[in-house]
Amino acid sequence: MSAKPTESQQLDNLSQDLGIRFAYPNSDRIYLQGSRNDIRVPLREIRQDDTVTERGRETNPPIPVYDTSGLYGDPSAAINLKHGLPQIRSAWITERSDTEQLSGLSSEYGQERAHDPKTAHLRFNQITRPLRAKAGHNVTQMHYARRGIITPEMEFVALREQSKLEQIWRDPRYAKITKQHAGEAFGANLPQHPDQITPEFVRAEVAAGRAIIPANINHPELEPMIIGRNFRVKINGNLGNSAVTSSLTEEVEKMVWALRWGADTIMDLSTGAHIHETREWIIRNSPVPIGTVPIYQALEKTGGIAEDLTWELFRDTLIEQAEQGVDYFTIHAGVLLRYVPLTANRLTGIVSRGGSIMAKWCLAHHQENFLYTHFDEICEIMKAYDVSFSLGDGLRPGCVADSNDEAQFGELRTLGELTAKAWQHDVQVMIEGPGHVPLQRVKQNMTEELQHCFEAPFYTLGPLVTDIAPGYDHITSGIGAANIGWYGTAMLCYVTPKEHLGLPDKEDVRTGIITYKLAAHAADLAKGWPGAQLRDNALSKARFEFRWRDQFRLSLDPERAESFHDATLPAEGAKTAHFCSMCGPKFCSMKITQEVRDYAEAQKGMQEKSVEFIQNGSALYR
Amino acid sequence: MSAKPTESQQLDNLSQDLGIRFAYPNSDRIYLQGSRNDIRVPLREIRQDDTVTERGRETNPPIPVYDTSGLYGDPSAAINLKHGLPQIRSAWITERSDTEQLSGLSSEYGQERAHDPKTAHLRFNQITRPLRAKAGHNVTQMHYARRGIITPEMEFVALREQSKLEQIWRDPRYAKITKQHAGEAFGANLPQHPDQITPEFVRAEVAAGRAIIPANINHPELEPMIIGRNFRVKINGNLGNSAVTSSLTEEVEKMVWALRWGADTIMDLSTGAHIHETREWIIRNSPVPIGTVPIYQALEKTGGIAEDLTWELFRDTLIEQAEQGVDYFTIHAGVLLRYVPLTANRLTGIVSRGGSIMAKWCLAHHQENFLYTHFDEICEIMKAYDVSFSLGDGLRPGCVADSNDEAQFGELRTLGELTAKAWQHDVQVMIEGPGHVPLQRVKQNMTEELQHCFEAPFYTLGPLVTDIAPGYDHITSGIGAANIGWYGTAMLCYVTPKEHLGLPDKEDVRTGIITYKLAAHAADLAKGWPGAQLRDNALSKARFEFRWRDQFRLSLDPERAESFHDATLPAEGAKTAHFCSMCGPKFCSMKITQEVRDYAEAQKGMQEKSVEFIQNGSALYR
Repeated sequence: MSAKPTESQQLDNLSQDLGIRFAYPNSDRIYLQGSRNDIRVPLREIRQDDTVTERGRETNPPIPVYDTSGLYGDPSAAINLKHGLPQIRSAWITERSDTEQLSGLSSEYGQERAHDPKTAHLRFNQITRPLRAKAGHNVTQMHYARRGIITPEMEFVALREQSKLEQIWRDPRYAKITKQHAGEAFGANLPQHPDQITPEFVRAEVAAGRAIIPANINHPELEPMIIGRNFRVKINGNLGNSAVTSSLTEEVEKMVWALRWGADTIMDLSTGAHIHETREWIIRNSPVPIGTVPIYQALEKTGGIAEDLTWELFRDTLIEQAEQGVDYFTIHAGVLLRYVPLTANRLTGIVSRGGSIMAKWCLAHHQENFLYTHFDEICEIMKAYDVSFSLGDGLRPGCVADSNDEAQFGELRTLGELTAKAWQHDVQVMIEGPGHVPLQRVKQNMTEELQHCFEAPFYTLGPLVTDIAPGYDHITSGIGAANIGWYGTAMLCYVTPKEHLGLPDKEDVRTGIITYKLAAHAADLAKGWPGAQLRDNALSKARFEFRWRDQFRLSLDPERAESFHDATLPAEGAKTAHFCSMCGPKFCSMKITQEVRDYAEAQKGMQEKSVEFIQNGSALYR
Repeated sequence: MSAKPTESQQLDNLSQDLGIRFAYPNSDRIYLQGSRNDIRVPLREIRQDDTVTERGRETNPPIPVYDTSGLYGDPSAAINLKHGLPQIRSAWITERSDTEQLSGLSSEYGQERAHDPKTAHLRFNQITRPLRAKAGHNVTQMHYARRGIITPEMEFVALREQSKLEQIWRDPRYAKITKQHAGEAFGANLPQHPDQITPEFVRAEVAAGRAIIPANINHPELEPMIIGRNFRVKINGNLGNSAVTSSLTEEVEKMVWALRWGADTIMDLSTGAHIHETREWIIRNSPVPIGTVPIYQALEKTGGIAEDLTWELFRDTLIEQAEQGVDYFTIHAGVLLRYVPLTANRLTGIVSRGGSIMAKWCLAHHQENFLYTHFDEICEIMKAYDVSFSLGDGLRPGCVADSNDEAQFGELRTLGELTAKAWQHDVQVMIEGPGHVPLQRVKQNMTEELQHCFEAPFYTLGPLVTDIAPGYDHITSGIGAANIGWYGTAMLCYVTPKEHLGLPDKEDVRTGIITYKLAAHAADLAKGWPGAQLRDNALSKARFEFRWRDQFRLSLDPERAESFHDATLPAEGAKTAHFCSMCGPKFCSMKITQEVRDYAEAQKGMQEKSVEFIQNGSALYR
């Protein structure tokens, strides 16, 4: 009988596992080189088989895919979770000479936990001497952007968003698959061609507040990414232990799993034991931005009593998390005292956890929300570490009946007011959105956000377009997400099949992520992101040519595609067969179409000969 | 060792199984009584628990749900698949005195199969003496509607679409949950209140061609339903054996399974052995309309050689199937010779099976599509049995790149021309639509259909809004389906997770159906079908009040909702607990909201007392 492994042993075991099983089929990890040696942007390229017909052989070029998996997606990388990921941003940050390394942690709680013998076995690679802006300095990407500076982060982002498309657009091997329909972008400032996706474009969008690059100076492991209406639509995956379940390694494993499938950012929503330590391990091993909801931890510190929350306690929590490297904070500063009674006649009241905590606090104290009254002080903290705001929608509707009501839109206008204030500090902002909204009312959410929040990036949870399908809410929300992404939402917070019912397991996370990847991609196609259709075209060409393996490889979830195929026709030969399981070998529409095409080709040849003949004939009469 | 049971034994076993396991939790099967005794419209009512708080007990009234499950959803019914379902329409049909019972089958193939000793063991309860319109008569629902006749079928449909809503709207027990947002119906003629959903409304919509009631006079077992833009959005489920798999009982079982989850019609797309016998068994046991693609069977009869198809062979197949009771035929009469070359430069050519068969035939013979040239003769057959057209989109796009192209829209215009022609015969028509269409191009499909096909009901396959997610195409298509349903599509053909990859198993059928139920419901909410929001409101109220069991019962898939809940919190007590698994007992936004609501209530009380005090005070000074 073996004892349960310690957290330390679990982490070692996971380190060994990672990197082996996380390779996508037929894929190469490549790096796009920036203007300096340490700007190396990861990309996955999917190799394709040749098309072989009686007429010969055609090469199908590799298809590049935006890659969120960090070093975990690099088969040559050695993974050691206890060391954390390489600190690729360190030089970029220190070269700016506007930060200082502190002699220790600034937050009381951080100091306490750092010296707590009971949690010593959970501490591995903490930051003990964090960075902070030097007095009088502002280290946000927005601040640099507004002063005209293109940071390495911005260049990284530009290369990443472009993903080799400029080169591909000039390469004749891709000519058959670069066709793309015009998008409908509802007045967005989208690039019209891959060559417009430049570092300067990134800078200008960040300066205008239309995009953010969440990048805490204490998260040097980060591979920068951008969230904005005029870039690819992003998705967020949530994780976090709760009072019901718990294990540090499990959370790290879930994170890597979510990155493998394509999460662009991760929110750590832990509410259970060892929040502080879990978060540290997630950040040290995360190549993507990490977001949190600091009020959750603050509430834990009061023993769950919302009335006992204080600005001082919250402030200490912000600093604690900022010094760990959290990249964005959800702050429910728009839940104003006067909005709370507007929710009393709702069908489902206040469903946001943060929103209900603040509402309860406001009522208990008969005072305005301290996140609102201390907003300038919060901005001072944000700009000292470059933590971005994700202004929380604490009054979002919890059912379609409550959508687009006075409480929701009142709060949204306040978030706009706070956006303007944050921008006075050059602090980056995105705005959280609903929730539950029927299809015909989705657009209004986007329109109101663009108007009242000045095009700050919108970040929505779904929305779910009906309430009647618990167990399928990744789909009810995926429908709303694709639509609102098309209308201009910059990031979509995923919903798993377990939403409203329980905590997601690994398969739920995978299903949730893939559903949101496809919704985000549908939005990119619809708004007309240049090059978005390349992968669709490549996959469809493979499908039409019966390159089954390429169809699997080019899909968002190659494993599932292949296993579904094999469930009907498991034989290896069937993967190269010129028919499929739906119709059988004798009766196949794609096969018939190929014959039609050959026929049309032949006919065209005859017509040309006929024209030639007539022309020659005409000559006879001359 | 037991031998494999015979088909006959399998059917007996299945008969025994049905009715036992198919009950939804806490549900009653009720019947709405029409103007005559034999109009009894099935409905499911979901009973709810009371709301119990410190302040007392509140009754939550039962929620009616449109029910497609026929007798299989009636726990008191005895099921015998060998007898088939009761022939509820027989009296309606014979009373019209416009049909005659033939002395035998009219089609050569039907006669041949009826006497084939090799398939004798597969024949159970065939129709051997079918009905046909008397000479000079037309038995279509459209014909009756246009002469101002309200048939029992139309009355049945009106009661079914209304589903008790008029009564509910007057019942004070429902007052809290009848709130509904205004829809956006894009110029549709939707009823604005439940009391407008009348038999006369149904008649007028059928007469105008905006809706169809597929109801073959040889399908007396049918519970009538309607497909039209101004009614609830419907969904179709496909089934059918293929050369790869086969079993008659399995197909019947799959049908009942699809009905249990909510399919409004079933298409039998069989291409394998015993097509004829399988179809007979499906129809005799189906309470919903059955659609087929007759060209599939015609092709089988030629041994799979498209060039060998003839009008005579096809005609015999139409009659064979019409006399079995098929309710609608997909006919690819719009695949014209001149459109075929337009597909040659597509990325994925022709992907419709029927379309590619006809294209090949046209090219091989250098002749116009015989379905087009013989269209009037087809109409003569359709009106003799009341088979509805589902005019097939043989040139639908197989990838987003090919969407909305000349070939697709050329064919659509021809379908409009054929619609006008069919309507001259008073034959009912719906129009099939795509396919693969990116989100920004979906609307155009609906607009073109409404314009060129004169608002004949649109019946679309998805559309899939991206090509890159095989394995998840129920979702990529569910997004397109919800949108196009909102825009005005009347019926959505489901897509399962196995689309493009293999044949769906039972779980895939369930997932596909539920996905399409939620998409259709999202469309009903969005266009503003009166009462559509009732179930959402009831479920959300249950959710907010921690009536977990009601939340499961009111959902589209109660089994899955409950099992997902139990995966995290399996204890029976957790289903009545005032918290849920996402946050744990100490930290629950819904619980906090209830406190906020109590608080607001108390405050309101204080304010009222204060107002009272001031008023009394004022009195003192008088």
